[in-house]
Amino acid sequence: MSPTSIDTGRVRVALLGCGTVGTALVEMLAAPGRSGDLALAARTRLEIVGIAVRDLDAVRSTSGGFPVHLLTQDAKGLVEREDVDIVVELIGGIDPAHRLVEAALNGGKPVVTGNKALLARFGADLAELAAARGVDLLYEAAVGSAIPVIRPLRESLAGERISRVMGIVNGTTNFILSAMANEGASYAEALAEAQSLGLAEADPSADVGGGDAAAKAAILASLAFAANVVVGDVHCEGITHVTQSDVRYARQLGYVIKPLAVAERVDRASAISVRVHPALVPHDHALASVNGAFNAVFIEGEDSGEMMLYGQGAGGRAAASAVLGDLIVAARHLRQGVFTPPAAQRVAVRIAPLAELSCPFYLSMDVVDRPGVLAAVAQVMGEHGVSIRWMEQKGLGNEARLIFLTHEALEGAVAATVHELSGLKVVDRVGAVLRVIGSEDSGPGRDA
Amino acid sequence: MSPTSIDTGRVRVALLGCGTVGTALVEMLAAPGRSGDLALAARTRLEIVGIAVRDLDAVRSTSGGFPVHLLTQDAKGLVEREDVDIVVELIGGIDPAHRLVEAALNGGKPVVTGNKALLARFGADLAELAAARGVDLLYEAAVGSAIPVIRPLRESLAGERISRVMGIVNGTTNFILSAMANEGASYAEALAEAQSLGLAEADPSADVGGGDAAAKAAILASLAFAANVVVGDVHCEGITHVTQSDVRYARQLGYVIKPLAVAERVDRASAISVRVHPALVPHDHALASVNGAFNAVFIEGEDSGEMMLYGQGAGGRAAASAVLGDLIVAARHLRQGVFTPPAAQRVAVRIAPLAELSCPFYLSMDVVDRPGVLAAVAQVMGEHGVSIRWMEQKGLGNEARLIFLTHEALEGAVAATVHELSGLKVVDRVGAVLRVIGSEDSGPGRDA
Repeated sequence: MSPTSIDTGRVRVALLGCGTVGTALVEMLAAPGRSGDLALAARTRLEIVGIAVRDLDAVRSTSGGFPVHLLTQDAKGLVEREDVDIVVELIGGIDPAHRLVEAALNGGKPVVTGNKALLARFGADLAELAAARGVDLLYEAAVGSAIPVIRPLRESLAGERISRVMGIVNGTTNFILSAMANEGASYAEALAEAQSLGLAEADPSADVGGGDAAAKAAILASLAFAANVVVGDVHCEGITHVTQSDVRYARQLGYVIKPLAVAERVDRASAISVRVHPALVPHDHALASVNGAFNAVFIEGEDSGEMMLYGQGAGGRAAASAVLGDLIVAARHLRQGVFTPPAAQRVAVRIAPLAELSCPFYLSMDVVDRPGVLAAVAQVMGEHGVSIRWMEQKGLGNEARLIFLTHEALEGAVAATVHELSGLKVVDRVGAVLRVIGSEDSGPGRDA
Repeated sequence: MSPTSIDTGRVRVALLGCGTVGTALVEMLAAPGRSGDLALAARTRLEIVGIAVRDLDAVRSTSGGFPVHLLTQDAKGLVEREDVDIVVELIGGIDPAHRLVEAALNGGKPVVTGNKALLARFGADLAELAAARGVDLLYEAAVGSAIPVIRPLRESLAGERISRVMGIVNGTTNFILSAMANEGASYAEALAEAQSLGLAEADPSADVGGGDAAAKAAILASLAFAANVVVGDVHCEGITHVTQSDVRYARQLGYVIKPLAVAERVDRASAISVRVHPALVPHDHALASVNGAFNAVFIEGEDSGEMMLYGQGAGGRAAASAVLGDLIVAARHLRQGVFTPPAAQRVAVRIAPLAELSCPFYLSMDVVDRPGVLAAVAQVMGEHGVSIRWMEQKGLGNEARLIFLTHEALEGAVAATVHELSGLKVVDRVGAVLRVIGSEDSGPGRDA
C-alpha cells in the first residue's frame, strides 16, 4: 500500500497548519503519561516529525515545550518526505490544502483532515483517490468537532436507510439564537457577545450567512445518502433576518428557532434536498434543548428510528480530540495495510428543486394598521394556496404586525406569496419567512 | 486469516437465534431493493445461508417470504459449516452462546453479537481470542440498540481521556420512572403499563433490579477505560424502592430521577467505579430529557468535553439495524483480511470500594411526628459527618416524612447513618437513599 518505509515501532506524522487545533494536537501528543496510552490504542508510537506553518513566528503554544525545531514553511516538501507516514491537514480552505492533500494521497499516505470546505467541494474526488491508493481519508473533525458523527454515519449506519439528517452544526449561530431566546438579546447584542467570547469572527459572515453550515450539510448528505453532494447543491439561508420578535412569537407558539442543516430524502426517496436555514423546532424536540455553542446531529432512520449525537461544537481541544481519534485509526490501518472505504460508490442523485418542497411556514410582516388589510393579505395567501393555520395581529402605533403560521405549503407558493405581498401598498415590510419542523400535530393547539 | 474459502461475490452469514431481532434482520436483508444498497455498502453481497433455532415451529416472521428452508436446530454444525464466513449470534445468555461464539472465533470466523450478558462476563477472553485469530468481534447492538455507542468509544474516542460515562441504558426502567414523573403514576402502575406495552417482561427483575444495565455498564467501562471490567465489578441497585413521593420531591428540588449506569475514574484516576442505580439528575442536564423507552449515553472527556449519544433503546428493528451495521463492517474487513482491534491491551484496573466514593445524597424517611425527632435524626447524621444542605418536613397524620438533601458525603458514612437511623425508635422507616448527580451548584437555591 504505502510506498514509504514504515518503522515498526512508530508512525511518523506530518502536521500541516498549527493554529488552535494543531497546537492542541501537538500538546496532547506530548502530554506526560499520555503517549503510552496513545501507543497502546494505536498499537504503535505516534510521532510528529514535521509541522508546516505559513509564519514561523505565529505559533501560539501555551506550554513551554513546543517543538519549534519541527517547524517548516515548506509544506509540500514535508508531505513528500520519505520519513512521513501520515499527513494531518489542519490548514483549512481550498488552497494550498487541496494540492497538499492530493500530494499526500498520491504518495500513498493516509490523510486526516478537518477541512469541511475542501471536503464539501472535492470530497468525492479525494475519496476516490484515497481508495485507489488504498489509504485512509478520515475527517471526523469536519462536522460537530469531537462528536462522533462521521464514523457512525460511514460505518455504524452503513446498512441503515436514513430518511433525514438535521444538524445544529454551527456553534456561532446556535449561540446567537440561544442568547436571543434565553436572554432576550437582540440579534446585534447576541452577535457582539459571541464576538467578545471568541465564538464569532470580526467578520461573522461565514457563520451567520450559513456558508460554514452548508459545507457541513454537503458532507452529511454525502455520507447519509452515499451520494456525491457538493456545497453548491445546498440551499443556504443565514440567520441575520431573525428578530427578537420572531423568537418571542416562536416561543409563544411552542417552538424554538434553531440554525439547522437539513438533508432529507424527498419525492418518495427519488431525490434529496439539502438546505441550511433557521427553522422553528417544537420545544419538546431533542434539538430544541441544544443550546449555546453546542452542536447536535439528529438522524432519522427507517429501522433505527430517531437518534441524536450531541456535544461541544467549538474549541481547539475538542477538534483535536477528533483528529487524534482519526490518527489512531489511520495508524492502526496503516500497519494493517488497509483503509476505511468511502461511504459507498459514487451514486448519481437528484437534488429536488426548492420550489417543489413543502412544509408549514412562519411569516411575519408589518402592515398599515387599518381595516381590510388582513383580508387583503389573506386573499393573496389564499390565491397561492397557502392556507393559514393560526394568526395574530399586534398594533405598533400606525402599523400592525401580522404573524402567520401556515399549514403545509409549497416553497414555490410561499415565495410567490411573499413576492406579491411585498408589492402591496398596505404591506410595509415582510420580515421573517421561516420553515417549521415537525408534523402539524406539533405547535399551537396540539393539546386541544 | 479466515481458513474458510471466500466466494468473491458474496459473504455467507450464519444466524444463531431468530427471535425479534433475528427475524427483523432476515427481513431487512431480504427487503426488495435493499440488497443492492447493502452490497454497495459492504462491497459484497450478504447472504444468510443458515438460521439456527431451538424450536423450528416458533419462528415468528410477519412477512410471507421467510426462508424456512434455512432453519436448523444444529447450531454447532451451522457454525462449523465450510460455507459459512460470518456468524451472527442473537441467542443471548451464556450457554450455548458462549460455546458457539468460541467455536466461530476458533474457526477464524468473525462474530457479530448483541449478547451483553456474554460480553460482560467473557468479553476480554473473547476479544483476545478474536484478535489472536485475526477476526472481528463486533457488538454495537449490546448497548443502546441502534445508537452508535460501541464503535465511537472503540475507535472515534480511542485517543480521548474519558473521565466519566453515564448512561440511561435500560428502556424499561426509564419508561417506568418517566411515567412516574410525567403521568404521576405509582411504581406498580408504571410497571403494569410497561408490561402491557411489551416493554417489560412478566418477570421484570432483570430490568428493574438493574442486572441488564449492570452488564451494559461493564461493557461501557471496559471500552471507556481500556480495561477488563466484568459484571461482578458493578455495584447494582434497582429502582423498585423509588416512590411517587420521591419523584415529586425530586422535581420540586429541580431534579429528575433517572436509572443510570455510571462508569467513572475516581481517586485521581488511579481507580474506577462502575455502578447502576437510580439517581437525581438536574432538570437541565441533557440526560434529564431522555424519556420513555429512549436510551442515551453521556460521555465526559478531558479534551472532547461533554457528549451525548441518544436514540431508541428498544425494538427488534432498531437492534437489527445495529447488527446490520456491524455485519457490513465485518464483511468489508473479511474481504480485506483485517479486523477491528480490541479497545486496547487488557489493563489491570482497580475498582474503588463503594464506601470510599462520595456525592450528595437524597434521603427520605418516615418518623414519629413529635418534637425533638428532627434533632435526633440530625444528630446522627452530624456524627457521621453527613452535612445537611436542605430539608423538608411534612406531616402524615401521626407520622412525619423527612426529606434531606445532603452536601457531598462519603458512601460509607451515609450507609452507617442509614443503618443507625433504622435502629432509632422514632424512625419508622428509611425510604429512598438516592445519589445526586452534578455539582452542588445544581438543585435548590442555584438561582439565589
